[in-house]
Order: sequence, then C-alpha cells, then structure tokens
Amino acid sequence: MYGAGDVRIETVPDARIVEPTDALVTVTRACICGSDLWPYKSRTPDEPPVRMGHELIGVVAAVGRDVRTIKRGDVVVAPFAWSDGTCEFCREGLHTSCLHGGWWGGTDLDGGQGEAVRAPQADGTLVPLPVGEDDALMPSLLTLSDVMGTGHHAARTARVGPGREVAVIGDGAVGLCGVIAARRLHAERIILLGRHPDRIALAQAFGATDIVRERDEAAIARVLELTGGRGVHSVLECVGTDAAMRTAIGIARPGGAIGRVGVPQYEAIPSSQPAFYANVTVSGGPAPVRAYIGELLPDVLAGRIDPGRVFDRVVGLDEVPDGYRAMNERQSIKVMVKP
Amino acid sequence: MYGAGDVRIETVPDARIVEPTDALVTVTRACICGSDLWPYKSRTPDEPPVRMGHELIGVVAAVGRDVRTIKRGDVVVAPFAWSDGTCEFCREGLHTSCLHGGWWGGTDLDGGQGEAVRAPQADGTLVPLPVGEDDALMPSLLTLSDVMGTGHHAARTARVGPGREVAVIGDGAVGLCGVIAARRLHAERIILLGRHPDRIALAQAFGATDIVRERDEAAIARVLELTGGRGVHSVLECVGTDAAMRTAIGIARPGGAIGRVGVPQYEAIPSSQPAFYANVTVSGGPAPVRAYIGELLPDVLAGRIDPGRVFDRVVGLDEVPDGYRAMNERQSIKVMVKP
Repeated sequence: MYGAGDVRIETVPDARIVEPTDALVTVTRACICGSDLWPYKSRTPDEPPVRMGHELIGVVAAVGRDVRTIKRGDVVVAPFAWSDGTCEFCREGLHTSCLHGGWWGGTDLDGGQGEAVRAPQADGTLVPLPVGEDDALMPSLLTLSDVMGTGHHAARTARVGPGREVAVIGDGAVGLCGVIAARRLHAERIILLGRHPDRIALAQAFGATDIVRERDEAAIARVLELTGGRGVHSVLECVGTDAAMRTAIGIARPGGAIGRVGVPQYEAIPSSQPAFYANVTVSGGPAPVRAYIGELLPDVLAGRIDPGRVFDRVVGLDEVPDGYRAMNERQSIKVMVKP
Repeated sequence: MYGAGDVRIETVPDARIVEPTDALVTVTRACICGSDLWPYKSRTPDEPPVRMGHELIGVVAAVGRDVRTIKRGDVVVAPFAWSDGTCEFCREGLHTSCLHGGWWGGTDLDGGQGEAVRAPQADGTLVPLPVGEDDALMPSLLTLSDVMGTGHHAARTARVGPGREVAVIGDGAVGLCGVIAARRLHAERIILLGRHPDRIALAQAFGATDIVRERDEAAIARVLELTGGRGVHSVLECVGTDAAMRTAIGIARPGGAIGRVGVPQYEAIPSSQPAFYANVTVSGGPAPVRAYIGELLPDVLAGRIDPGRVFDRVVGLDEVPDGYRAMNERQSIKVMVKP
C-alpha cells in the first residue's frame, strides 16, 4: 500500500526462513480486513509503502531447525498477531501482548496478501488444521485468523452470557461474527445496529433478534425503547469511531460492559461521565485470537457456526486492489484472496 | 454551600417525614468527603446554595407508616446514595442506579452535615448497627457510608485478588481505604502513589508495600521499574483528574483493569489507544456501598480492618467551614463532624 487508495501488486524478495523458530508458509487463502481500510482511507504518500494482510491459511513449505510442533505439509491458520506461546502474557491468554510477538506486514515482514510468508515463532503462532487445503470449510476456518476471534473477544469482554441483552454496533464482518459469538454464548437478545440490507439479512441468519437502522442519538433512543429504558447489558463495539463509542455508552445499561474491538480512531474515550455514573465498564482491545482458536475450531469443524458466510467475494492476487475498492465502497462485506 | 470556599451554617426547616417510606434520623456522626471539595473549589455564586453531606450515622427518631425493618431508636449507617433495595438494579447489587433512589443534600433534601435528616426509602437505605451510638468503633463504622465501600469498589472493579500486583493512585481517604481493600482481597503487592508523609505512613500501616512519590510520566516510569517493565494488574484510580487517568493507563499491565472511583473532572477518558492496544479495562463508578456493608461490617466489628484511622480531625457543626478549609489545604485527611 503506497497511500490512500493506492494498493499495488509488486514482486518482492521471496519469503524465507531467517530465524530457526520460523516456518515458511505458502499462502492458500488470505483476506482483506476492515482495519486495512483505515490506512486505505488515510495513508499519506510520504509514508513508506507497506506490505498488507494479516489473516491467512497456508501450507507449511519448510521449518527452521528449532521448530518442534509444526511440520512441512501441515495446513495451518495464522492469527493476525504472531506470538511465542510461552511468555507470561501468552500463558495468560493475551497473545497480542506476547513479549516476543509482533504483527504481520509493514516494512520488514511479509504480509498475508501475497504468495508466501515467513511465519515467526511458528510453534507458538501457527495452528494445524485437520483438513485438506481446499476443504469446503476454508472460508469459516479463515475467519479464525481474525474476524471470528475478534467478534468473540468483543462478546467476552462485554461479558455476554445467558439471559443477557446484547447490542452489536457495526454490520461489518466483525460485527456479524459478534452476532455469532453472542448467540453461541447464549445471549437472550441480540440487537444489531446497522444499515445495509445484505448485512442485516446475514445478521438475522446468524441470530440477531432486533435491527436498529438509526444512527447516533436516534439509535440510542431506539435501543432504550427496545429495552424498557434500561439499555443492554453488553455492547460489542465493532466500528472504532468516536460516534460508535458515544452510542455504545449511550445504550449500555447501568452496570453493563462494552467490548470494543474496532481499531479506535479517537484519542480519548468520549462520554466519560455518563459511563462513570452508570458504572459502565469499557473493555476490549486487539483480540488474542490465538487463545480462542482451540475453543472455536471444534464448532467450525462441526458446522455449529458458519462465519465464513461473511465472505461475499473471492479475488486472485491481481484483483486485490479492486477488492479494497469494493470493501471501501461497501459493495462487499469481506473479500477473500486466493493467490 | 453558597459557592467556592463559601460554606455557612444555617438554620433550615426541621427535617420531617414526608413519604410513608421515610425515616427521621438524628445525626450523631457525619463527615466531609473529598468529593465535597470539587464544588468547594469551583462552585459559582450564581448557582443556588446546596445542603452538603452524604455520609452519616444517626439514631432513628421516627419512621413512616410503611417502614418495616427500621425502628425508632436504631443506630443506623446511611450510604451516600439512598435506594429502595428492591428494584432490579438493587437486586443486582448496583444500588447507585436504583430506580427509586437518589442522593443526599442539594436543594431539596437534607444533607448529612446537619442535625437531622429525612431518610427516604428507609428500609432499603439504612443499615442498623449492633452498637451504641458512642461506640469506640464509630469512626470505622462511619466509613461504611462511603470511603471504605468506595475503596472496596475500586478494588473489586480493578479485579484485585490473590497474586495480583496493585497500584493505588491518590493518598486521600478513599485511596487509603483502597489500600485496606486491596490487602483484604489478598493482593500480593500494593504500590501507593502519593506525596504526603502523614498519609504515606497510614498507607504503610494499612498494608502498602511500596510508595511512589513521583507524578505523571515520572510516576509511570517508577511503577514500570518496580514491576519489571510490565505494570500492575490492578489500578485503583482514587483521584478523578485527567492526569490521574493518564497515569492509571500508563501503569496498567496488558490485560489489566482500572477501577476508577474518583469523581471524574474530565469529559473524555484519555489514552484511549494505549488502553486499547494493551487490552486494559476501565471500570468503576459511584460505589454501591449499600451492597458492600454486609460484607465489610463484620470485618469492622471484629477489628480486622480499621478504616476509621483516616479521620484525623473532629469538628462540631459550627466548625464545618473550617473543616472544609483544612481538607482543601491538605491539613487534614478527613474530617469527622459530631453535631
């Protein structure tokens, strides 16, 4: 990505093993993330170009000499952050704060939107999948690299559980996965705040019980009306804007919790005082999806959840720039890349 | 209170029973709260004068015809918010959001810094104490009306528990009670951020293991140094300023939690992005002290905790203005009022 709206397909040096803990992975599926759209909207040309993509499934082509649990030929899913799996934060389940971890792409590392990647900390990062590389479950398995785990994190940090009333702000792929997660955690009611008919239909298929199409103050009023003036126990904030956070705090029930997973585009969390007086908790952050794969994978393999339905377009590498455009213009919910 | 720095003792209409659920309470002990100092610093004279005081112990002089559990002659403690004890929020333990509750003082209701109060929702609000009105435990019992319960709320919402490293921001009465609460909940380490020698000595007596006298960036650096660069699991934010919240987020360990109980003097919670990327939770609010009295009272009665030591001055009603001055000038930690 060279700047806002400027994504190019270029030949870069081949991915290769650098550290003995690395694996070399041939990418078989990747995708474009809603968070990729933030730099797509705002990156300036004076910043150095970066390699993009942090969600991928692939086949292990080679491993470094210290890799123990991953082997050549494995079909693996890679979380959007890599991690060693052994540091104190990984042991606590917060792999996104791994002391020896990091993020795909950028100026130094390979991105998932490419033919192959060097996968650092292969034993900690990669999760072998018990399926072939073209299994019909690939779309849903691919969501375990980010959006399904991120929706689950929003639900967990918003304390979704049986009997709880839940609102999901945002009808993008993460919000839709948040609906799946809330239903999976036995929420009593799931209110989706969104405006796009195709996404609303999918949310309803995933378990949304109510739809609120209004925005801002009107959305707050509508959710309060739906909940007897109280608000909801749990808000999954899947957008990342100041307006979305204001709405989240406005619709949270006293004593409720907000799980925010949209990358924040604001410097300060608004509505500090209303949140304080109502004892509303603001939680969330980058999802430790690596920690959640063990819990979510069996449900994907058994077909109990089907998050792969968020993909509504598949492109080859050459079409990636058009995939960005389609997602940015809301013509597509989420784009899969098949190199 | 007529305005900043302007507290007067005046004769007002006698407190009396208005609703059948009221009790009339003769105040035997009250106090001045750190939160009373915010209007003492900033209230403008064009605002109507307000009656002050929301922490009190007294003797029930009369009860309305619908009062069932409280009777004339009971020695009772009143939480800083009154509540019916039966609504859905009270049943969930969030009495500060009671559907039929409210706050002492202001323009319409009696304040605790006076001779007597009308106590609304007497059955829900008041807690009888199994002691005489001049019991030696009065100072500690009085803290159950606010500061001890508030320190406990900070600790609970910051998820203090065994093995956790804790920091308490603020060496006022609430911060000192936060130290007591953190120790009571078996924190492994308790770092107090404060600067006043008398308060620091008391914090150490209450169980603080480390003292950080620096402020802002220097305080953050010192706490990180004390915790191997990681930060603390739990931060009790007992001040309420933007600077205190910045410090709280700066010293929170990834995945940690902040319990904020200082009345926020800021419109937006700063450091949104650092908190997000580290998955730091911001929680807290006005403490539902009514919910906590059942848990804390036995420890006070048995002498296992001694929060009454935060009182270092006792005044009569006529001296209340001087009590405000003393607390505002940091000559006193907390002032007890004995009408």
